[in-house]
Amino acid sequence: MIFYEARPAPASTQWLYEALVAERSSGKVGYYHLPDHSLPLIQRAQELDWGFETIVHIGIGGSSLGPKALAHLFASKLKRPIIFLENPDPVEIRLKLASLDPQKAQIFVVSKSGRTVETLAIFKALLNHFQIDPKGARNIAVITDPDSPLDRFASWAKVPSFHIPPNVGGRFSVLSAVGIVPLTLAGLDTAALLEGARTFRELFFAQQANHLLAKALFFAHNAKRYPITVLFSYASELEEFTRWYVQLWGESLGKRKGQERVGLTPVGLLGTSDQHSFLQLLIDGPRDKSVTFLKVARFGEDLPIGSRSLPHLEGVDFLDGHSLAQLLNAECDATKRALELAGVPNDLIELQSLDEESIGELIFYFQLLTSATALALGINAYDQPGVELGKRVLRQLFSGDGRQSG
Amino acid sequence: MIFYEARPAPASTQWLYEALVAERSSGKVGYYHLPDHSLPLIQRAQELDWGFETIVHIGIGGSSLGPKALAHLFASKLKRPIIFLENPDPVEIRLKLASLDPQKAQIFVVSKSGRTVETLAIFKALLNHFQIDPKGARNIAVITDPDSPLDRFASWAKVPSFHIPPNVGGRFSVLSAVGIVPLTLAGLDTAALLEGARTFRELFFAQQANHLLAKALFFAHNAKRYPITVLFSYASELEEFTRWYVQLWGESLGKRKGQERVGLTPVGLLGTSDQHSFLQLLIDGPRDKSVTFLKVARFGEDLPIGSRSLPHLEGVDFLDGHSLAQLLNAECDATKRALELAGVPNDLIELQSLDEESIGELIFYFQLLTSATALALGINAYDQPGVELGKRVLRQLFSGDGRQSG
Repeated sequence: MIFYEARPAPASTQWLYEALVAERSSGKVGYYHLPDHSLPLIQRAQELDWGFETIVHIGIGGSSLGPKALAHLFASKLKRPIIFLENPDPVEIRLKLASLDPQKAQIFVVSKSGRTVETLAIFKALLNHFQIDPKGARNIAVITDPDSPLDRFASWAKVPSFHIPPNVGGRFSVLSAVGIVPLTLAGLDTAALLEGARTFRELFFAQQANHLLAKALFFAHNAKRYPITVLFSYASELEEFTRWYVQLWGESLGKRKGQERVGLTPVGLLGTSDQHSFLQLLIDGPRDKSVTFLKVARFGEDLPIGSRSLPHLEGVDFLDGHSLAQLLNAECDATKRALELAGVPNDLIELQSLDEESIGELIFYFQLLTSATALALGINAYDQPGVELGKRVLRQLFSGDGRQSG
Repeated sequence: MIFYEARPAPASTQWLYEALVAERSSGKVGYYHLPDHSLPLIQRAQELDWGFETIVHIGIGGSSLGPKALAHLFASKLKRPIIFLENPDPVEIRLKLASLDPQKAQIFVVSKSGRTVETLAIFKALLNHFQIDPKGARNIAVITDPDSPLDRFASWAKVPSFHIPPNVGGRFSVLSAVGIVPLTLAGLDTAALLEGARTFRELFFAQQANHLLAKALFFAHNAKRYPITVLFSYASELEEFTRWYVQLWGESLGKRKGQERVGLTPVGLLGTSDQHSFLQLLIDGPRDKSVTFLKVARFGEDLPIGSRSLPHLEGVDFLDGHSLAQLLNAECDATKRALELAGVPNDLIELQSLDEESIGELIFYFQLLTSATALALGINAYDQPGVELGKRVLRQLFSGDGRQSG
């Protein structure tokens, strides 16, 4: 389903393959197993369906980026809209609540730790705004780690709780209940999504996708030379997907290794739009970036440009008889060629089409690539020690000296 | 209106100030003069109003990022929606056209050069899709350089043409007809926008904002040490604004200087969301980034979190009695403090509120900062030679060997 053009492969990728096999079989890293373990969630999600019109998804970071990416990708297929309440911005949240009838909405509160401050603040503000009593509410459910504070709250309130396996990190959780439950209820074919992920996992562990290992070693060996990794997606539908990638990559690989600071900085771009904003920097700026293009061979719909020549605009008549999809893909090819001529390292992932199965493959590809690159860099992909300090400072701001802004 | 916390000032900023004074008075760089020169556009735009319901804005890059940033910022104030047709993605464009009645829409075709391939392709596809004859159409207008192909097309079709001054580059054009005409018709107070820009310009040229010069010199002197410049905005309303900044900064500063490659890579982040996706990399990853925080002192609306303690979720009771705006701003303070403790260079811009005048100031601030940083780096901020190659390759793909994708 997916074509990968690999960077030149280093002499041996075998050790890295074996490290990933060991990680998978250790049982310590849960995302490897989600394509199988998440299957029963599809039926459990469907049982929750009481005919609501809207889904409200309260969550942030790893709890929202995956489902948001998929809801955006398949916007035209959703049988119900999903409203994401993510950032505690009062203007945005008020605007979204203004058009919401909570009696016709299924509300999911999603937090792996069950104690995420922004998520719980928005949940409490929503309860307060609509004067909802959560105890026994038929339209509230939670998605969280077993026995987390949020899970215990759900037991108290007698509302459903879907569990995230404790060994699945937030940014690796899109194929857990975090994504599967709301996306199933929104009408996506989540079985195909899991099937695609399983397909790529089996391909990889049958050593039929060793280009991934070569790419991870390229990134690790050249981390100082090319510290910025660009994902350049040529489809507006993939715009939120690049944000999911940015979190996965940035948070997994930005780590300390003893005294050393390690990491690759992800940048997500949208083609063709960002040819008009970022390409100049890629071509003429510092040679510190590598680029992966993401291209869609066949779009679900197309739009002809027509064949009518307009006076004084004959300069674009070379497009006559072609379509927007042809233009978009030719621009991807042209930009890739321009980067090659300029000496910017790059490769291409081509999706045959934008459907759940292809995206399942792509999700698993990027998760495996992240794990492989972390192993090649000698760091732990699955923790995030650096964000704790800010959380402590936040609590101090609200307690100690009573200093608050805003 | 705006508070800036400057980085330590180098010994002298006087030469850079004088270089900007010279650039302004040279007449070669037009954006300095837009706060005055664009004023008559407000009335000309109002005269175009024939009671349409929707504005369609066809443009890409510098022709769309500015107006999009402002339409997003002031979404709740718009008296008519603006539909941006930007990326030639067939699925996205079809979805937007599906809900459009062209007889009730004013269509703007916006291209500085008047020959932008994507923009003209979408325009032709729209004419073709709705079977519109552009000749004498009352609902079509163009925004372009004088005597460009698009301008000559407008003369032929007898539709209005609003001119962009030839010495105003696309990414510096938001305060020209590119932004002022559609945003006036959408109901924004564009006079206040220009007034804000003028205010900051006068402040700067009265040497009352030399912190900007110190900051530009910091960026230039540390371009190799801190090659990545992060704009971390704490308001969902500013999300598209950070994209406008990314183009302005990336395309202006990514340049060749003889054999040397120069540039600072911009990254736009949204707080608090990106604390959960990018902060780990900022704190523990390579020390190659500087950060500017953008914070809003007073939001137009707020939402109380309430004071109800929820069983098992008492861990967030420290928020009781506070609001989402207070939380958002305290998170900004906490993250800034965490970066300080981690030794990441950073500063803060605080907007008193999100209104047109404040945003006008902010636009002019970033434009001047870009010009100053380019002068400090010894490069030309106003050209983009690197993007021509891709354009040539694109035409070859459609002509020569007939090879097309998609």
